[in-house]
Amino acid sequence: MLDVAPARQLVLDHARPKAAVELPSAECLGLTLAEDVASDADSPPFDRSMVDGYAIRGTDLSSGGAELTIVEEIMAGAVPRRTVAIGQCARIMTGAPIPPGADAVVMHERTELLSDSRVRIRDEKFRPGQNIMPRAASLRRGQIVLQAGCEIGPVEMGLLAEVGRARPRVIGPITAAVLSTGNELVPADRVPAEGQIRNSNGPMLAAALRRCGARPVELGIARDEPDELRRRLAEGLASDLLIISGGVSAGALDLVPGLLRELGVEEVFHKIRLKPGKPLWFGVRRGEAGSAQKNAAPTLVFGLPGNPVSSLVCFELFVKLALARLAGREAIAALAGTSAELTSEFVHRGDRPTFHPAVLSHASGQSPSVTPLRWAGSADLRGLAEANALAVFPAGDRTFAAGESLTVLPLGGP
Amino acid sequence: MLDVAPARQLVLDHARPKAAVELPSAECLGLTLAEDVASDADSPPFDRSMVDGYAIRGTDLSSGGAELTIVEEIMAGAVPRRTVAIGQCARIMTGAPIPPGADAVVMHERTELLSDSRVRIRDEKFRPGQNIMPRAASLRRGQIVLQAGCEIGPVEMGLLAEVGRARPRVIGPITAAVLSTGNELVPADRVPAEGQIRNSNGPMLAAALRRCGARPVELGIARDEPDELRRRLAEGLASDLLIISGGVSAGALDLVPGLLRELGVEEVFHKIRLKPGKPLWFGVRRGEAGSAQKNAAPTLVFGLPGNPVSSLVCFELFVKLALARLAGREAIAALAGTSAELTSEFVHRGDRPTFHPAVLSHASGQSPSVTPLRWAGSADLRGLAEANALAVFPAGDRTFAAGESLTVLPLGGP
Repeated sequence: MLDVAPARQLVLDHARPKAAVELPSAECLGLTLAEDVASDADSPPFDRSMVDGYAIRGTDLSSGGAELTIVEEIMAGAVPRRTVAIGQCARIMTGAPIPPGADAVVMHERTELLSDSRVRIRDEKFRPGQNIMPRAASLRRGQIVLQAGCEIGPVEMGLLAEVGRARPRVIGPITAAVLSTGNELVPADRVPAEGQIRNSNGPMLAAALRRCGARPVELGIARDEPDELRRRLAEGLASDLLIISGGVSAGALDLVPGLLRELGVEEVFHKIRLKPGKPLWFGVRRGEAGSAQKNAAPTLVFGLPGNPVSSLVCFELFVKLALARLAGREAIAALAGTSAELTSEFVHRGDRPTFHPAVLSHASGQSPSVTPLRWAGSADLRGLAEANALAVFPAGDRTFAAGESLTVLPLGGP
Repeated sequence: MLDVAPARQLVLDHARPKAAVELPSAECLGLTLAEDVASDADSPPFDRSMVDGYAIRGTDLSSGGAELTIVEEIMAGAVPRRTVAIGQCARIMTGAPIPPGADAVVMHERTELLSDSRVRIRDEKFRPGQNIMPRAASLRRGQIVLQAGCEIGPVEMGLLAEVGRARPRVIGPITAAVLSTGNELVPADRVPAEGQIRNSNGPMLAAALRRCGARPVELGIARDEPDELRRRLAEGLASDLLIISGGVSAGALDLVPGLLRELGVEEVFHKIRLKPGKPLWFGVRRGEAGSAQKNAAPTLVFGLPGNPVSSLVCFELFVKLALARLAGREAIAALAGTSAELTSEFVHRGDRPTFHPAVLSHASGQSPSVTPLRWAGSADLRGLAEANALAVFPAGDRTFAAGESLTVLPLGGP
């Protein structure tokens, strides 16, 4: 049976960043930029007033004060029409262009209007050039403002707007189909009959995908019946990633691996030395040679165990890694986990490494600590609701002492 | 002028959690649960097989092995029809109910089929009750599985589905209108004429809202013209929160505060001892007494400075706090920031506390460190793109030594 680390490496080896596309910038939040973006103009594009006040000539204020003639009023968005000569000034608003002749702005709190066309100025703290943001102070035309590979967050959205990049080249959103299998499953809004349970994995996995910035395609529940399963699996293979919940253990009705093979999906691995999550199945449908670009990208297929906690642990350990690589995100190292000190003694028993629901805590000024939670096993989703991390216990029966360092995988986040 | 801390307290004092509503669970990701949710049934609802194999009577296996007669095959989702008597067993699938009479399951790897109706079993590790998940092992009917106040993440989505809560009571999504003001602004997809610049704050703030789980209502750009501004502000007041970018400094065209007063918005504060972000304006339109419930909730109004960095700093410090309180989130303390050691000497000058773009780093096993970035001031959005935090320097001119502890406000996240 494969260990977790080489299995994760196999997932990374098979995942490739999705092809770049041009999208309207409004749709790009959370996506990865696939090109360097340069400024199309100087920013600001002109010498700009940073306050409301009067644009003046510094030489007129050499004594700290003056009475000047107002020749014009310049609003933001307007273009100055007059040159400011000796003894003159222009009333000016924040964001408006500095008129020719002027070389500083005095804020209006330090002025007194004498008449419609005369103003007294007294600025004890006057400095030449004050309150002007010079052209190109923020960005020069042609300067790279965003580099390929960055994640587009709010600041990047602002920069794309500032430089007029309305359709940047990005790695498109990852689509991920979710199919739950099992004759015992009914949708969440139905009351289960005898022998049935509700499908909790479908909604949980769709939400986990959304949290990672992927677009879930919810395919609902498929019965353990070859024709229906084959049709729904084929539908799922149209996405970048297909997640199947259940149907990958070893029983008579576990038809999924065979049907996937029929559909051209090659098995990469099946079963992992991991608790919970042992029955994990991973395969790839390679792009068809000579096919249109759209179908050339491989589809990654994960068969997750049916038990909800096993399912989520496999999502955190394997699916997230695939999503990060498909989305072209660099910061994959962060998915390897961190280390933290165990807060109290813990007895671990088991022949597989165990990812145990836990609370990871970063108290200010202290090294991180981890507290394993009470947890009844792979069907106990409630035990996982309190957790913000998984504590990793290596295989073997052993008592871990308080203060021992453990590897911890934070939950949530992309 | 008000300090940051009392201003933040005023925002919290005026923000109240939004009224709870029932929503389809599929729309609840990221929302706050507004009721305790109990399980409507035992989970699992029956004694359930955890493996594929044979349901047997433990007494038949007292010697570790036996040859048994197969009386039935029980699929997941099916209901057993036969009682397992001495010398008998039932073939059973993962997730299927345990038939009457049986009290353990032997996994199929430890069995050998002799004929259609006979099986040899050899399970050296046999334990009574093995491979059965007893009814209610995970949840008891009536047990509270989720408590009011929790944030609905993937695990909570799974639990809501498991207990059949298809329309939970939640605090509805926060709507936030974004209006950019200024005659100098043009949309991001236009080439600015002389004297104009592109509106970068609108898209940036809409993205920042989305990241916090709020629903932005993008109202675009309003010109500095009373009738147009009044109409657009009134439109914005229909949301839970209205963010106005620009229009709150002190110039002739800064009409916004006056128009807001006309529209029934009371000013709570204007101007903060903060750099960047001094011109911040905050007000509240109280619910009208006797009005329908829908209009009774107050609308919070933020007038953010027009400079993009000032705008984002005010968003991080004030708007996020309001969003968290409106959404009923408890973990508001986290928004107060953390502390970190300065990596190298830094000279700060200024008469206001300064929130400086910085990189906060948590190296494994070390206390957090912070590195202020090169930053050209409140219009330099590019300097902010590299940052993941704001380093807080108190007012006054002073050289901070490497290793000194600073307050740091992490950026991003809700």
